[in-house]
Amino acid sequence: MTRLALIGAGLLGGSVAAALRAAAVVDHVTAYDHDPGALEQGLARGIVDVAAPSAVAAVAKADAVLLAVPVGAMAPVLQAIAEHVPAHALVFDVGSTKQSVIADARRELSAGSSFSIKRFVPCHPIAGGETAGIAQADAGLLRGRRVITTPVEETNPQALDTVEDWWRATGALVERMTPAEHDAVFAAVSHLPHLAAFALVDAIAASRGGADKLRLAGAGFRDFTRIAASNPAMWRDITLANREALGVELAALRQALADLQLLVEQGDAERLEALFTRASAVRRAMTGDAQMNDDAP
Amino acid sequence: MTRLALIGAGLLGGSVAAALRAAAVVDHVTAYDHDPGALEQGLARGIVDVAAPSAVAAVAKADAVLLAVPVGAMAPVLQAIAEHVPAHALVFDVGSTKQSVIADARRELSAGSSFSIKRFVPCHPIAGGETAGIAQADAGLLRGRRVITTPVEETNPQALDTVEDWWRATGALVERMTPAEHDAVFAAVSHLPHLAAFALVDAIAASRGGADKLRLAGAGFRDFTRIAASNPAMWRDITLANREALGVELAALRQALADLQLLVEQGDAERLEALFTRASAVRRAMTGDAQMNDDAP
Repeated sequence: MTRLALIGAGLLGGSVAAALRAAAVVDHVTAYDHDPGALEQGLARGIVDVAAPSAVAAVAKADAVLLAVPVGAMAPVLQAIAEHVPAHALVFDVGSTKQSVIADARRELSAGSSFSIKRFVPCHPIAGGETAGIAQADAGLLRGRRVITTPVEETNPQALDTVEDWWRATGALVERMTPAEHDAVFAAVSHLPHLAAFALVDAIAASRGGADKLRLAGAGFRDFTRIAASNPAMWRDITLANREALGVELAALRQALADLQLLVEQGDAERLEALFTRASAVRRAMTGDAQMNDDAP
Repeated sequence: MTRLALIGAGLLGGSVAAALRAAAVVDHVTAYDHDPGALEQGLARGIVDVAAPSAVAAVAKADAVLLAVPVGAMAPVLQAIAEHVPAHALVFDVGSTKQSVIADARRELSAGSSFSIKRFVPCHPIAGGETAGIAQADAGLLRGRRVITTPVEETNPQALDTVEDWWRATGALVERMTPAEHDAVFAAVSHLPHLAAFALVDAIAASRGGADKLRLAGAGFRDFTRIAASNPAMWRDITLANREALGVELAALRQALADLQLLVEQGDAERLEALFTRASAVRRAMTGDAQMNDDAP
């Protein structure tokens, strides 16, 4: 049996810990969070056995360490625990950007540290929710969801296999990608839509008659902008962590809108209908509309 | 009691007719639709009493005429019925753009026609749905929804009051705006989001690895792009009918994205977080997320 150290006791970390407990992958959870209230909730929920006073204390006797903090907090956490994670332990994370977390790990888990990057497995579960506390944690959250693993050349193959088996035990579907592939994909289908929704809502609110516009908005607008209600600090971190891939996607969207504006100005009914028809067919072919974990980065 | 002529037997027209019947505003509905199957469904649902072979035949004995066709079809319908609507009747519509429909009415209901533009009341109910058939019509669809009326200088005040009373009888909340105000508001909160969603889905699908990206998209993406599944021909018509206001809004969104890209490139954490915080607060303050009539233009 395995002792898990959970760093970051939020909805996602708590759900993964609960799922690993339920699958009997782990039998003991020590957690650290900068918010003592979160640790209390984790204890009350029975997900956490011991609330540690620091990340260092949490990892001291761990067989597995789950980093479930915002991507902007990965570097300081890795720096703090690098000399304290037992040499046999495996470390994995849930960060929504991978190249930045890997760069943090390469920097902090240097040759001199007791813990090696070989035993760090970069992961991104495609799950989450706007209600971002461990109070809402759910052992079934990962069921049927994808988890992307992005090994690097240093990654120990057995460590990778083991962590992937843990994810499968939570009910998730595991898929391997390169860190760059991962970041390009999620820049397009997650980070860009969030930025576009933030930008649109902010621009409308600041425009003449903005309050009236928002008051009159219908259901389509509410769906389109629901992700604009996401956590600002978390999305600031994700944006900065994936700024290169996101820059490419922002430029692509701006070009697509420029092309579209030209069609609108030219009154090109045929090409407008062709574009809308292509997009509508693609969107209708997508499934899973019932899932509503809106904040999932 | 009132005889209603329903031109266009879809979800919205059928629901309005059903609601007006339920409120005892009308006691007889004659309908015309270019699709005979829609008329059959309307008869089967008990919403339609008589299926007319043409728009002209439908309006012949009407006290009220409801134009519930796509905005691109308003001009030919108005042209067809202009000489056949009884002089005492009231005509109202559900078009999602108002200046274009009013321009159509001014052109087709000229001084020479038997029916006067004075008795035409331009309306836009903020309701609808992706399932666009009269089979899904619902007498409760308008309850609590806003209906915008956009009278022009020719509009007869009594005609306007009467049509607004009818809308109130369906449970809707009536609000008056100028046609230009209406078109500017809905360019921002309805037409622009639809175009942005169409453009984003089309750009991602056409990009390198597009199919993989869409396969890996999470719940946030599905919410953001749900409106991209909307009816292409309807949105082609709306886009062209409101191209001027939409051009302004497209330019504003492109500028907002350009500003945002600059913050991303500069790595300006403070301004990014400020923008996301403003947008998140605005979005969280909006209510009505439970309503899911996604296609409502």
